[in-house]
Formats: sequence, structure tokens, C-alpha cells
Amino acid sequence: MKHDAFLMKDLLIENESKIIMLVLDGVGDIHTPESPRTSLELASTPNLDALARVSVLGRHMPISMGITPGSGPAHLALFGYNPTRKEYDAGRGVLESLGIDFDLLPSDVAIRGNFASRDASGFLTDRRAGRIPTSECDRLCGMLQEKVGVLDGVEIIVRPVKDYRFALILRGEGLSPLICETDPQKTGLKPVPPTALDPEASKTEVLLQKLVETYNKILADEPRANTVLLRGISRLPTLESMWSRFGLRPAAIATYPLYRGVAKLVGMELMPMVDTIEEEFRILQENFAGPHNFFFIHIKRTDSYGEDGNQKGKIEVIEEVDRYIPVLRDLNPAVLMVTGDHSTPHVMKSHSWHPVPFMLHGPFCDLDGTEAFNETECDRGRLGIFPTVQIMPLALASAGRLLKFGA
Amino acid sequence: MKHDAFLMKDLLIENESKIIMLVLDGVGDIHTPESPRTSLELASTPNLDALARVSVLGRHMPISMGITPGSGPAHLALFGYNPTRKEYDAGRGVLESLGIDFDLLPSDVAIRGNFASRDASGFLTDRRAGRIPTSECDRLCGMLQEKVGVLDGVEIIVRPVKDYRFALILRGEGLSPLICETDPQKTGLKPVPPTALDPEASKTEVLLQKLVETYNKILADEPRANTVLLRGISRLPTLESMWSRFGLRPAAIATYPLYRGVAKLVGMELMPMVDTIEEEFRILQENFAGPHNFFFIHIKRTDSYGEDGNQKGKIEVIEEVDRYIPVLRDLNPAVLMVTGDHSTPHVMKSHSWHPVPFMLHGPFCDLDGTEAFNETECDRGRLGIFPTVQIMPLALASAGRLLKFGA
Repeated sequence: MKHDAFLMKDLLIENESKIIMLVLDGVGDIHTPESPRTSLELASTPNLDALARVSVLGRHMPISMGITPGSGPAHLALFGYNPTRKEYDAGRGVLESLGIDFDLLPSDVAIRGNFASRDASGFLTDRRAGRIPTSECDRLCGMLQEKVGVLDGVEIIVRPVKDYRFALILRGEGLSPLICETDPQKTGLKPVPPTALDPEASKTEVLLQKLVETYNKILADEPRANTVLLRGISRLPTLESMWSRFGLRPAAIATYPLYRGVAKLVGMELMPMVDTIEEEFRILQENFAGPHNFFFIHIKRTDSYGEDGNQKGKIEVIEEVDRYIPVLRDLNPAVLMVTGDHSTPHVMKSHSWHPVPFMLHGPFCDLDGTEAFNETECDRGRLGIFPTVQIMPLALASAGRLLKFGA
Repeated sequence: MKHDAFLMKDLLIENESKIIMLVLDGVGDIHTPESPRTSLELASTPNLDALARVSVLGRHMPISMGITPGSGPAHLALFGYNPTRKEYDAGRGVLESLGIDFDLLPSDVAIRGNFASRDASGFLTDRRAGRIPTSECDRLCGMLQEKVGVLDGVEIIVRPVKDYRFALILRGEGLSPLICETDPQKTGLKPVPPTALDPEASKTEVLLQKLVETYNKILADEPRANTVLLRGISRLPTLESMWSRFGLRPAAIATYPLYRGVAKLVGMELMPMVDTIEEEFRILQENFAGPHNFFFIHIKRTDSYGEDGNQKGKIEVIEEVDRYIPVLRDLNPAVLMVTGDHSTPHVMKSHSWHPVPFMLHGPFCDLDGTEAFNETECDRGRLGIFPTVQIMPLALASAGRLLKFGA
């Protein structure tokens, strides 16, 4: 199809329906000889399984076979935006800035910063500065902000994000995000100097080189965070809102900045930041009767445990989420979906390209006789394997929000 | 893919094979807790099931997930034309005019008319004039035609279609189809005056306003059909013929104008109009040895009963069609396909977005061990879920009419 929302708009109708999309980040696993059962298959999930029996199941493919998506593209696809479109390409700098509720301007250059450790010769010894806590990050950002507010006429804004991560925003005229990342991706190497990828970025190159030098001096005496790495140098893309595209008033319940950032990019209202899964579901309950009609709830730790190779941890998070499924069903949404954004098999300790378990419960979902929510049952599901961007049209249709195409 | 027939043409070869495509309109159902078995699953279909055991099964998706197709787009897809291409967009006026064998010119504006009832204040009381019979429609169209043959230098052609429906063709210079429909879609409202959607249509707007006024005067004393509603105001799109695209000489056996219209649009020859399923299969038998090598047979009433929520009626039509399957097999076509154009689940009383049961019988179809023709067996079929526009290439290949692509 030419446009990913090519014919949606003419078909949209409004009604009172509400849609819930519950995303367990990286929930999908794979089957190997050593680990023949996935976390979803091993977890005790009576409520998810009961929901599966009144749902239609399948697997969605975030980009295409063999392509492993990052969290940004994977969520864009879930929200109905083709993540391979150049103009939707939101850098990590933008996503993290939005995620901490920073109001980016279209001309701002947004950067994701890591505090890092280097030795006396300048070689990196830890790309995450020993994973310093957020409180330490707060102090360091405050110090950098206080010492450098403006440089070469450009406003420099530094905000803590989480742990060793901060957001760096350059605000001024004639800036460009076309600068290569300074993180060499390995310890034992020196950070790459900020380098323009395009002549239009030469002013920004000079500015960032000077800024990194200045920060290095300010941080020189810090025991761990004595340098910075700059990544995801980017500028706000303009995405049509989910309201304009799908006629929905969406709300996002998420605890991590990046996911809040993507949600904000597509025009979701960010619900208050909380810490626990229990609080996330409480926020949903409190807001369900309000003006929003699409609720995105994001569970982070399935992915974190997958990345750590900790299947036990992943199973525990799944089992915790399972206990809140009755809360969702009691709200009686027109459409209730449970899925992941991508797979993060614990045996791979990373995101992967494998299609993602999906289930949709709605009045005309077309029951498929599946009896549990896991990879093997999703493979038996009636939806088959389908592109992630088609989830939103399916959800809208299931909620009675799409007219027929043509006579 | 960029062009829906992107590489077909270089690969086409001719042979003596004949292909039959039997379409049971809206045949697909869904499974719900209240209606756990579909019409195909409940119907007694020994002949379709025997055919399934020597066929390959699957489900086709007319447009994409969640998108419910109208009959026009759904049939275009079956015939191998991407229905979302703007230039293939044939309005209902065009389809109905073609369906009654009217020879439209490319400059004609074709309109689907409804006779309707209104009260003394002009408010609609019945959008279908009490579903007057075709004989009444004939008389009214004759009267309108006799009284208004030309208006403002434009030739006005009125032809009865079926029941309360007629075709209105404007033939002249400087006309445009960019006029909004006058049907408000609800009784209790007044018809919308013909209104230009674009400045180029202002002449046509004035003409249609005058025409509706004139018709209202002529019809003033009719007990039921005392006004008209104008819909599907459109112009002939130019579609490549199935001969040019696929090297086929196609014939259409269909009893309803719209389906005959779409068939004509892609260059099918329309076989004589008949009323019953029995007669449709007789027409096929009589013409099978003739010059055509692709036969489209359309069964309407599976859809009509689906729209009425009448599962019993739907099952009876399926069982009736089943009795003629041996007729098809006795003709010994190279390829025999049985499918629908879209799903019309009786529980929804409308077209739906769910993928459509499909089976193809041919020498190298790749048997899949399925044992009956229904949704659940089609889900088990080897073809999986695939785009409807890929049916024609599959049929051509199965008939030995496609060469290898590349060396």
C-alpha cells in the first residue's frame, strides 16, 4: 500500500467505544533445544489464558522477516505508523526528551547523553559510568547546567533522564542534527569527536566539540562520571496525531521515558509517571471513564529481564501482569489487546526479529479455539502472521469505528 | 508492489486451459460464543468437501486487515486489480449502468438513482419507495425519459435497474461527476440538494438541481415513488482488460447489475441475465466449450441472507450451490476455484473485514490434507492468509499459463 493510512481517514466514524492496548515489552521468546519452552509457556497465566479463549490470536511482524526493531520503530508500528518511513524517524534524543516531558521545539537538536568513565589517557573504561543512580545523575546535570547555560549564542539545556542517562538540548539558530554519535560502542576506545555528517552541520560540530571539552573539564574530578557520550542526535519529526489519523483520543501509561516519548510523538496524552505495575493499572482504572478512548499501557520489565537473559524474572513479570487482567476485563472495553512491541528472547539477551504474540478480544473477533496466550497458541491463531501496522485498523474495525471501503 | 500486474505480462503464455471462478458473495462467517459454527460449517456440502480433499485451501484478504470492502472493490481484487488504486475507483453509478448493459462513454456522468417517498413537507419517509417492484420502476423511468430527454443541451438518459433502483446518465460537454450524493442516508431528513464538490462541477450542479426539481413535479402524484435520490455520481474509469493483462477471454455469469458492471469494467463478456442458480450453471454448461477461457459465476444470495442475519437462508443457498459442484467438475476445467468476494457474517448483518474462504483445484495445487470447505479448514490450508489480488496469478500459474521469472 502506498500510504500506511491511505484510506483510513475516509472510513473513520466516531462512537463511544474504548480500546485498550496492553504492551508487555519484548514479551516474545523463541524455542531452542536448551530452552524448549518460552516464558509465556512456562508462566502460570490463568487470566491471560481465559482471555485467549474468547479472543482471536496471531503474531505480528514489526518490520519484516529478519529485521529486529528498536523500541521506537516497534512502538510506532503498534500505533499504526509505518516505522520505515524516513519522515517518522525519531532519534533517541528526541524520544528521551519527550519522555521526560520536555517541550521540544521543531528547531531544537535533541541528544541522548550517557555519563561514562574514562582513564587518564581518555580511553573509555565504562560506557555507563558504573550505572550511577538517578540521584547522582540529577546532581551532575544540575552542575553542568549551572556552568554552561549558553555557548556560542546557543542555549544549552541539560536534563536528567534515568540512571546514567541525560537529555541534552541545543536551542538556537542554524543548528543541524546531522552529527555522528560519539559513543564508540566499546570500552578501551576513545569517544569519537562530534563530527558533521553534512556541511550544513559544521556550526553544530564546532559547538559540540567545544561543549564536550568543557564538560570534560567540569567533570574531571568525578570518580565515575568523568565524561559524556552523545547519542541519537536528532530533531523532532512531525507525525500526524492519532486523533487526526484514527479519530482517537489516546492516553499513555508508561514508566520509561522512551516509551512516553514515542507516545507523545503520536499525540498521546501522558498519564502521570509511576513506578510499579500495580500503579500503572490503578492509573488506568482511575482514568478509564474520562475523555480518552484509547489506552496504551506499557510494561517494561519483560524486556529488561529478556535483555539480562533472566527467564525467571521475565516469567515473574508476566505472572504479575496476569493478575491484573481481570481489572482490564472489568472495565469492559470494546476492544482489549495484549501483545509485545517486539520479541526479546532471554536466550538471545537482545531484541530479535521473531514475530510477536498478539491477542485481540472484541465482539466480532472471530474465535479460533486457542486456549492460552503464548507463542505456540498464537501460531495456531486465526490471524496468522501479519504486519504490526495493521493492528490499529483491526482494532478500529473491531470497535465499530471503520466504514466499508467502496460500494 | 508498485504495479499490481508488474511482471505478469512478460510471463504470460497461451494454452487451451479453462479456468472457473465460482464466487459465493459474502460467504464467509465468523465464530462467536452465540454462533460457534459458521454457515459453511453447518451446511451439508458433500460435493464442496469432496472438492476440498483434492484442492488447496486458504483465506484471502481483499484489502488489508480491518478494512471491510464494498462489492466493487472486492470483485476488482478477485479479478486481479488492486482495488485501492485511485484510477480503478468505479462509482456505483458506473457499475449499475454497465450492469444493465448500457454503453457508457468516457465523458458520460453516470448516477445510481433510487425512487423514494417523501411527505408533503419534503421529508423522506422511505428511501426505497416501499421497495416498488421492477415493473413499477420500468413505468416510472419510461415516464421520466419521455418528459425530459434533453436539459440545458445535455442528453438525459434514464434506465430502470431493479426494484426501486434506476440509472441516470448525463451525456454532453463540460460535465463533472464531482457532485455530492443527495441521499441523506436516513428518513426524516430532506434530500441533500445536488452540490458541486469542486468548481469544475458548477454546470453539473445547476443541471442536476433543475433535473431533480423537474422530476419531483413529474412524480408529484405518485403514491410511493414521488421523489428521487441520486447516489454514486461517477465516470467510467479506464481499466486494462483481463485480456490485455492476463491473456484471458473472460465471461461473466451474474444476476445482479453491480457484479455485471464490475465484470464489464475489466472486459468480461456478459452472459445472458438469468434469475436462478440453476440457470446460471446451465449458462455455464452451454458456453463452456465456446471461445471463453475464464468463467466468473456469481451467486448473490449468500450475501443477501448474510445481510439479513438469516443463517438458515445462507446455509440453504450454500447447499443449493453444492449440488451443482459436480456440474463444474464434469466440465473438467484446468483450474476450478470456489470462494467469496468478502465475508458477510450473519451475526453482523453486514460485510466484514474478515479474510475469505478460498479453494483452488488444479493439477499442481499442492494438496494440504484439508477435508471440507469452510473457515476452519481454510485456516488449516496450505495457502495461509494472502492478498486477494494474488488469486489471478495463482490461477494462471495453476493453469500452466505463466512462465518462470528470470533465468
